Amino acid sequence: MNPAMENQVTAAVLVIGDELLSGRTKDTNVGHIAETMTSIGIDLREVRFVPDVEEEIVAALNALRARYTYVFTTGGIGPTHDDITADAVAKAFGVGIDHDPRAVALLKERFKDGDLNEARMRMARIPNGAELVVNPVSKAPGFWIGNVITMAGVPAIMRAMLDHVVPQLKTGAKVLSETIDAGLKEGDIATDLREIAKNHPDTTIGSYPYMNEKGFATRVVVRSRDAAKLVAARADVEAMTERIRAALAAKRNRD
Amino acid sequence: MNPAMENQVTAAVLVIGDELLSGRTKDTNVGHIAETMTSIGIDLREVRFVPDVEEEIVAALNALRARYTYVFTTGGIGPTHDDITADAVAKAFGVGIDHDPRAVALLKERFKDGDLNEARMRMARIPNGAELVVNPVSKAPGFWIGNVITMAGVPAIMRAMLDHVVPQLKTGAKVLSETIDAGLKEGDIATDLREIAKNHPDTTIGSYPYMNEKGFATRVVVRSRDAAKLVAARADVEAMTERIRAALAAKRNRD
Repeated sequence: MNPAMENQVTAAVLVIGDELLSGRTKDTNVGHIAETMTSIGIDLREVRFVPDVEEEIVAALNALRARYTYVFTTGGIGPTHDDITADAVAKAFGVGIDHDPRAVALLKERFKDGDLNEARMRMARIPNGAELVVNPVSKAPGFWIGNVITMAGVPAIMRAMLDHVVPQLKTGAKVLSETIDAGLKEGDIATDLREIAKNHPDTTIGSYPYMNEKGFATRVVVRSRDAAKLVAARADVEAMTERIRAALAAKRNRD
Repeated sequence: MNPAMENQVTAAVLVIGDELLSGRTKDTNVGHIAETMTSIGIDLREVRFVPDVEEEIVAALNALRARYTYVFTTGGIGPTHDDITADAVAKAFGVGIDHDPRAVALLKERFKDGDLNEARMRMARIPNGAELVVNPVSKAPGFWIGNVITMAGVPAIMRAMLDHVVPQLKTGAKVLSETIDAGLKEGDIATDLREIAKNHPDTTIGSYPYMNEKGFATRVVVRSRDAAKLVAARADVEAMTERIRAALAAKRNRD
């Protein structure tokens, strides 16, 4: 990330739950939030996973909310004893937490009187001063307090909540990106690629190895908020990869 | 995590790379490391994702290595300019970094003299005092210094490196776990489940909603390092879910 990218809108994700750390559940929310942020010009800068332990959640939240424009949390807002995110958020902000009448009304739409038991009512406990985040899937809302947006962990619900939140976010200039499939090994292009990266300071150039049937190959991703600079860097990467491909082919013919 | 679980062998994962934070690449390494740690009795307690920025990597590494028995890093040890993990680890430990003769020898096995260029030689730069971590896939090694184990980001290589490391790790008593598919909504069992969790302090009881064709249902996961306590908690959860299922069925018949 180069200095020109500072003063951007930034974000972090806090993934909450023992089940992610035990490997029982595989997180897919981070990737979805990351893609969404990129698509609207917000830089996702950090992700943390913490267990269902209040002091861990509070400490991570306070570290992240001080540093980034937005913090998205996922998980821990259901009705069971291990769902402690709402309390942790309230504690992090030093505010009280109570049954919120707007949230109670939403739960009453979903549950008949007899079914809206004490445990389910826990899902209406919202830190004081928070706005609700709509949950079109199962009603029990997320919430938004300060720069922290608390969402469910179930991917379908998290995605629906994020769709609701996105139009309300302050966004930055979108990062444009181009991918060049170099068709070469990283080590064959690395020296030249370093020079190109140095010559194009307002772009970020990443190199990502992958394996295909012939062995390792590389995708180069050029990113910039400036379309002209992106095109210039891309052209340099393409010219370089063509030159090296030709040189290696000539070498193979000689050998 | 209850107090009886303290004094365990613990771990954290530090995922390094802009491509994960942009959403371009979806991480699968965390889930694999999490499962592996659980299977050998190590508690994975925290995960962080940071960008390819040296000070971010150093700060996260120093925070994590002070807190946990082991820290696993993934990503950023290739030959290109954006691969800065080895330098960041050296800086975090305050040691020098040089071409390591053992690592150079490994690269020479893989690359012919003409192909072992300056960029590829970067992959032999290892912090002073580190042990190498074998890479059976593509030779360029990871390394192990203090309590930090640095591995590749490419999943196939990371897994091979981890397989090599696991037999050398100090492990704890394995956490045993049992999953009960409650066949009920979380809100129907939450009050009773909270009581059961309170009555079984040496177990961790998690409740995980999922959606099936009938709507929401719940899996309850009981975890403990003590087999007898696990069995006792599991029995209580099963008895409770059966009782509630029967009560709800009776109620439906009355309605």
